[in-house]
Amino acid sequence: MFPFTHPGARVSVAPDGTVYAIPDPPALEAAYRQLAQRAETCRQQGRQVVVVQGLGFVGAAVAATLAGTVDAAGRLLYFVVGVDLPSPSAYWKVARLNEGASPITSPDPELGALIHKSVQVHQNLCATVCEQAYALADVIVVNIQLDVTDRTEFTAAKLDLDLDRFRAGLRTIGRFMRPEALVLIETTVPIGTCTQVAAPTLNEERARRGITQSLHLGHAYERVTPGPRYIASIRRFWRSFAGIDEASAHKVREFLSSFIDTKSYPLWQLEDTNASELGKLLENSYRAMNIAFIHEWSLLAEQLGINLFEVIDSIRVRKGTHDNMRFPGFGVGGYCLTKDSLIAQWSATHLAHANVELSMTLNALRVNYSMPLHTLDLLRELAGGSLEGKTIAVCGICYLPEVADTRNSPAELLVDRLKSEGARVMVHDPCIESWPERPGVALAQDLPRCLAEADGAVFTVAHRAYTRLASAVPGVGRCTPLFVVDANNVISDQDARTLHEAGWRLLGVGKGHWRRRQYQCP
Amino acid sequence: MFPFTHPGARVSVAPDGTVYAIPDPPALEAAYRQLAQRAETCRQQGRQVVVVQGLGFVGAAVAATLAGTVDAAGRLLYFVVGVDLPSPSAYWKVARLNEGASPITSPDPELGALIHKSVQVHQNLCATVCEQAYALADVIVVNIQLDVTDRTEFTAAKLDLDLDRFRAGLRTIGRFMRPEALVLIETTVPIGTCTQVAAPTLNEERARRGITQSLHLGHAYERVTPGPRYIASIRRFWRSFAGIDEASAHKVREFLSSFIDTKSYPLWQLEDTNASELGKLLENSYRAMNIAFIHEWSLLAEQLGINLFEVIDSIRVRKGTHDNMRFPGFGVGGYCLTKDSLIAQWSATHLAHANVELSMTLNALRVNYSMPLHTLDLLRELAGGSLEGKTIAVCGICYLPEVADTRNSPAELLVDRLKSEGARVMVHDPCIESWPERPGVALAQDLPRCLAEADGAVFTVAHRAYTRLASAVPGVGRCTPLFVVDANNVISDQDARTLHEAGWRLLGVGKGHWRRRQYQCP
Repeated sequence: MFPFTHPGARVSVAPDGTVYAIPDPPALEAAYRQLAQRAETCRQQGRQVVVVQGLGFVGAAVAATLAGTVDAAGRLLYFVVGVDLPSPSAYWKVARLNEGASPITSPDPELGALIHKSVQVHQNLCATVCEQAYALADVIVVNIQLDVTDRTEFTAAKLDLDLDRFRAGLRTIGRFMRPEALVLIETTVPIGTCTQVAAPTLNEERARRGITQSLHLGHAYERVTPGPRYIASIRRFWRSFAGIDEASAHKVREFLSSFIDTKSYPLWQLEDTNASELGKLLENSYRAMNIAFIHEWSLLAEQLGINLFEVIDSIRVRKGTHDNMRFPGFGVGGYCLTKDSLIAQWSATHLAHANVELSMTLNALRVNYSMPLHTLDLLRELAGGSLEGKTIAVCGICYLPEVADTRNSPAELLVDRLKSEGARVMVHDPCIESWPERPGVALAQDLPRCLAEADGAVFTVAHRAYTRLASAVPGVGRCTPLFVVDANNVISDQDARTLHEAGWRLLGVGKGHWRRRQYQCP
Repeated sequence: MFPFTHPGARVSVAPDGTVYAIPDPPALEAAYRQLAQRAETCRQQGRQVVVVQGLGFVGAAVAATLAGTVDAAGRLLYFVVGVDLPSPSAYWKVARLNEGASPITSPDPELGALIHKSVQVHQNLCATVCEQAYALADVIVVNIQLDVTDRTEFTAAKLDLDLDRFRAGLRTIGRFMRPEALVLIETTVPIGTCTQVAAPTLNEERARRGITQSLHLGHAYERVTPGPRYIASIRRFWRSFAGIDEASAHKVREFLSSFIDTKSYPLWQLEDTNASELGKLLENSYRAMNIAFIHEWSLLAEQLGINLFEVIDSIRVRKGTHDNMRFPGFGVGGYCLTKDSLIAQWSATHLAHANVELSMTLNALRVNYSMPLHTLDLLRELAGGSLEGKTIAVCGICYLPEVADTRNSPAELLVDRLKSEGARVMVHDPCIESWPERPGVALAQDLPRCLAEADGAVFTVAHRAYTRLASAVPGVGRCTPLFVVDANNVISDQDARTLHEAGWRLLGVGKGHWRRRQYQCP
């Protein structure tokens, strides 16, 4: 079980099982005093202090990037403090960062290297749970989570989102921040959040403290991309931003320009924070909708015996008009694409009180959520109509190839349904050691053995261990003939033929030509 | 009325009003004999004969392109014959082409120049209504129309499409074609047409004639793009194709390579004609769906006071993943995007007997069709709640800027609804002399006078005469203060301010910032 609470002592357990005792308040405060002293020293050396609120997938990477930022003369620009909560589910991130290790797993070696060097060598990166840290900051970067209550609710009127935790985070900042500090929200938020939620909350706390000068507040949504270019997706990528006033916008531009290669990727200042907030929700909705759109064409192509991948390849040569077309696939996972459209609709209804239903947009998320059920249909067909009593190997839990990220993986729905239909499910993924969202599911370690034990298998993501299957997996040829669904263009046509000749039966999402060639038959 | 039947003599009237008498059969045949002799002479000189079936928007351009095609040594490659029907609605195209003029209006000067030179100077392009012409051909290019019965029917089960006319065209080819000739279908057709309709029809006629050798048949859908690069969109653009067998595919590749710059735009051979037929329908459905998707975000942005154009500009910098995003607009017109998704669904149901409903795809076409009703809502709002008795200037009937093409223009629905709500409608468009789809509507010639007479105006397309309105239209400043809807990003922000300061009231599709600035108020 993860996260779990150790009886007796308060502990926080990292996803890899490492147990961190949560220090008692005096110890935490003592550690903070040390940190504050270092921050003061750094400030005297001319560095600014940045506090990052939230050490999750984005916050940890942003903190690392900022800590590694230097000026033209190669001098470190910032002293960076990461803040997270002293809770069993969060404290391990603070502890791990202070050890000089990354709280998140990434295939980008730069992330770990940056954190190690910043913590151990430059000593300009550290983490704390003490809220007073916000008092140190010239810039506070907000990267705490904000989510809808239920990502499987696609009806506009029933959508729910709780701003309380987000608002509480801002309130803490308001209680401690320096009057002139910049608060920069990078979290994906409902449209209207900066002006209707963040500014009033911060100003309320500031007013209590007698601060009358103008608040500096901006929004610059992150486009951090899981994968091997994790840090580069911060430093070398396009970025839009806005401020609640021109002075705020100016400060945001100055700050972003300090660590982004704005020569190659000029910043884009939007007219107001509403526009910036909408921008993020729109760009992810666009992506989600285009994924959903291709699904019904995939079903058609399968019935018509057409290789939809080839057709889409042929269309995508039309650069600028058609090259954003998506390919057939297993489903949509991750933190953003599965929720951002829901946040857009929620803000339309609840913050803007707009009489607009984003019906195509919501429907696209519904389609994406249900997409794995088509893979289930293909498995059931190959199993002869029923999956009851069959052993099915689900290969691939992560939602991207070679990225150890299982958040909202479409494999969840498939595995749940396989079980409810009476199948015995074996799960394999070479990139992860555990499946935090399904802690009860044990991961098989040995792919050939896993396949040898199974009646059927499904490949959901193109991990290297799965591609070029016929040649890459030792002993695959010796497996009992299996039935296999390729749900995400994992198996090449050549390998499919080899495997079919070896007695395997295959179907593939979007691969009508496999059906035309009767690979589903013995 | 267009087309009309002249009492007494049989005539065919061109869109510009020119009346062509349709010759009697003996005269037509005499003309054909001349043509056949010229074809024979050209063949003896080493040229191939290409017959293009259908002289519409695509066929005329393809015929012109082929007639202008030369080999590496600069020698003309083809003798080209255009074939259309001896009917009142079609014959004028034959007559006009034989005069050396283009049957279609295009802003691309190359089209008219090519036709003039080919007909008058090189004498390797001509047109006929005689079906025997197919007997001359080495290659027959099919470009006849194929349409659904009702483009406003978006329910899968109710969609209707009549293949009879298309089948009749193929039957005629089968009756006359040389056994070894290549039949290349460029028309956008339902998936399965080549194998289930075209091949059987052609083979039936060929069998009657005792022809036993294999039919050469292929599909290479056209991507001709109305606009200033009309001919270039044939010669210098990507092209996909397929044949019903490898010999057919080989012939298609050879033929396409003779007039397309395949060095810069390599051909893409698809696995079978089904794939090629689906490709065209998918690429246009993708475009139509992305236009529809943005519409609901446009409604949201307007209510939130956000300039959606700016937000989309900021997102489209993400080349390869987000730069196909479409902008808010007035609606969708033209021959393809308003029907191709319907053809896809029809073929799924009626040719493939597939159990698939392309529901997102069909819904997108429904949204696009209804889109002008939002512009109507904005006009009604500016008119104070009712359009009854108001004089409204509808500026822009063509569906693309500076392109004289009114086919399925979204202006149709707007004008019809304005009238049914009791408005007096004035219509203006600088690019056309008549509106074939609404022959009863007179076009105003003088924009300033038109605006001076109107209570309100709508700009539906960014013709040069409309952009930079405040400065470009003489006397605009002197017009009675108008209310204006900018339905297609025609008026710049700067001009909007100028016009608002002059007393005009404005709203714009996707332009929430105009509402935030209260341009809709006096």
